[in-house]
Amino acid sequence: MSTLGTCLDAVRAQAPLVHCITNYVTVNDVANVILACGASPIMSDDVGEVEEITSICGGLCINIGTMNARTVESMKAAGVKAESLGHPILLDPVGAGASSLRTNTALDLMDGVRFDAIRGNMSEIKTLIVGSGTTKGVDADAADAVTEETLDSAVHFLKEAAGKMHTILAVTGAIDLVTDGTDCYVIRNGCPEMGRITGTGCQLSGMMTAFLVANKERKLQAAAAAVAAMGLAGETGRAHLASYEGNATLRNRIIDAVSLMDGNALDAGAKMEIM
Amino acid sequence: MSTLGTCLDAVRAQAPLVHCITNYVTVNDVANVILACGASPIMSDDVGEVEEITSICGGLCINIGTMNARTVESMKAAGVKAESLGHPILLDPVGAGASSLRTNTALDLMDGVRFDAIRGNMSEIKTLIVGSGTTKGVDADAADAVTEETLDSAVHFLKEAAGKMHTILAVTGAIDLVTDGTDCYVIRNGCPEMGRITGTGCQLSGMMTAFLVANKERKLQAAAAAVAAMGLAGETGRAHLASYEGNATLRNRIIDAVSLMDGNALDAGAKMEIM
Amino acid sequence: MSTLGTCLDAVRAQAPLVHCITNYVTVNDVANVILACGASPIMSDDVGEVEEITSICGGLCINIGTMNARTVESMKAAGVKAESLGHPILLDPVGAGASSLRTNTALDLMDGVRFDAIRGNMSEIKTLIVGSGTTKGVDADAADAVTEETLDSAVHFLKEAAGKMHTILAVTGAIDLVTDGTDCYVIRNGCPEMGRITGTGCQLSGMMTAFLVANKERKLQAAAAAVAAMGLAGETGRAHLASYEGNATLRNRIIDAVSLMDGNALDAGAKMEIM
Repeated sequence: MSTLGTCLDAVRAQAPLVHCITNYVTVNDVANVILACGASPIMSDDVGEVEEITSICGGLCINIGTMNARTVESMKAAGVKAESLGHPILLDPVGAGASSLRTNTALDLMDGVRFDAIRGNMSEIKTLIVGSGTTKGVDADAADAVTEETLDSAVHFLKEAAGKMHTILAVTGAIDLVTDGTDCYVIRNGCPEMGRITGTGCQLSGMMTAFLVANKERKLQAAAAAVAAMGLAGETGRAHLASYEGNATLRNRIIDAVSLMDGNALDAGAKMEIM
Repeated sequence: MSTLGTCLDAVRAQAPLVHCITNYVTVNDVANVILACGASPIMSDDVGEVEEITSICGGLCINIGTMNARTVESMKAAGVKAESLGHPILLDPVGAGASSLRTNTALDLMDGVRFDAIRGNMSEIKTLIVGSGTTKGVDADAADAVTEETLDSAVHFLKEAAGKMHTILAVTGAIDLVTDGTDCYVIRNGCPEMGRITGTGCQLSGMMTAFLVANKERKLQAAAAAVAAMGLAGETGRAHLASYEGNATLRNRIIDAVSLMDGNALDAGAKMEIM
Repeated sequence: MSTLGTCLDAVRAQAPLVHCITNYVTVNDVANVILACGASPIMSDDVGEVEEITSICGGLCINIGTMNARTVESMKAAGVKAESLGHPILLDPVGAGASSLRTNTALDLMDGVRFDAIRGNMSEIKTLIVGSGTTKGVDADAADAVTEETLDSAVHFLKEAAGKMHTILAVTGAIDLVTDGTDCYVIRNGCPEMGRITGTGCQLSGMMTAFLVANKERKLQAAAAAVAAMGLAGETGRAHLASYEGNATLRNRIIDAVSLMDGNALDAGAKMEIM
């Protein structure tokens, strides 16, 4: 039976190689979490090699967190090549809405490349859909938060957008939503302390790309599995914190928890419903 | 009553957004310590967006640790914009004295931007003041160390320089000195093991910027509070090390300690006098 | 008596400054492990300063993990300068074989600079020697693994290549080989879990450069000592993992173990023979 857990097991079984063009803030954690889930990362952003690098990989993760004029060209070239090869491609539009350059870069990339999934917080995703997210830097604005009260309308909004955009939208926050326009996974794993760590979103994007590569025939479920795995790892990591351990140790313990998780544990711990 | 601790509480209450143009060596730790103290970081260094990014933030931290020709232009543009908006701006002249390019870049930035604070080790700061620091790479030269014997003359020297430069100078080492030209905080927190970790200085610069933003009416005290908080976190972090834990774990525990610190703890732990 | 341990003690006694032009994925860990072994790192990659920076250092570590057109020029300039000063220079050809650009960059660097040591996995090193390594991204291909069965032929192959190339070749994997063409150290420290952490190879390259600088009169032994120290640190780090700790914590504990290791411990723990 196809479960979230079997999506993780498929990553461990296939050990896909994931090409990341990602920001220098969280790149080390992205690499370690990709290794933790059973895949292998390669970071490469020079336009002279990104097409060749992405060709030997199974998928591509583009994260615009510290993009610059040079690396944006590499993102485009890699994206076009990966698409031509049928590789799963993910966009993490970090800070879309925080500057015109970020918003426009994300929209340009979406014009030129067909993304299998776009993962961000609600402010970033709203910016891409309707141009009106009120991003607070790289964090979601409180006004955009998905709560139990706004859940129905948020699901409706994202389903419609995902359908029009022909992509999976994965919006993470206190409640995570993952939809392909038809079904929407509603995931309630995770803990508030994850908001005090840089890079859990970037890590999830890297890991989700690995999940997509290893589960091409069930991409929506794979994306949801990655979201649930990250949230569950946050819960597990927090459970083992000593009184004197805070956000930096939690950062490590989350990656640790991913490295120790198997499909059964993910299925047992995932708090998920489909709307 | 205004204490160092109330400066920390103000950061947690206001959660300012801090724009960092910083080096790629320690950037993840800088982001995590800014989150740990209650603020939010955004790293951005492309000249096409830095003015817009800094405009949505409360303050700017410029760190030249791995600067290059491209990012120096971004530092200048962001600095000019942030100054025009009245945002607190901090310079961390990493490695000034280690190369002409670093020294000249720091001096150029100081010519074009009014910094509220400059934080470095004594060799870096001496280089900026008198052109004669004997930097050993990115570490202070032993000959420049502030000791109990050289304390009086170091305080005098820094007060005079800070007065002329119209900035706060924060010099960290075994004894930390923070002065605006009139008063000088002498802080004796910290532990020698912090010298075996990369990035405690960079982290302090990021955190200090957050403190300045949240305490604009008392910037000297805010800068001193950040210094004491970092030193106290070093002491707390070291106290919990197991026998098999060394510099990498201490690195994490320092950020952990910041994330768990409140104003009362800072006031109780700060070892500070004013000269 | 000259032992591997005395090579580590020499690093702690001399505290050499090491110039690193290295990738942004693992740079923080490289800096912390260089500090852990008793040396000091400085990362600098702008062509306007690399010659001056490398001049104040004792050695140079070039790692092409996230090289780009700009930094490759800096690598060449720094390499030529460091060679002219007689500084030990190390090349880590990360991902050679994964793209033509990486392979050609590594070969170009080897044409222009005399490296004292080249450290990589077997796929990378084979690519440089015979152009036929089957690199899997930045990891070695299983077909290239050195095993007890292939040990004799691998030693023979590397000895011949090192002799022709007039350099030390350090090939790391389940069994590590370090040869200057005459002798070959065969080192069996380490643990499989190290393969699930990004950057242990990059860290070793940084640390090995420090060992070469502090032991110029016995470079082969110094390179072997660094390899054994990294492997032993992996064993020590794994021994202290709690049941809920995985690859991210192991990453930290390895650096911790280096920071706590002295020459006696290295001699006691090294599993080494010379072929």
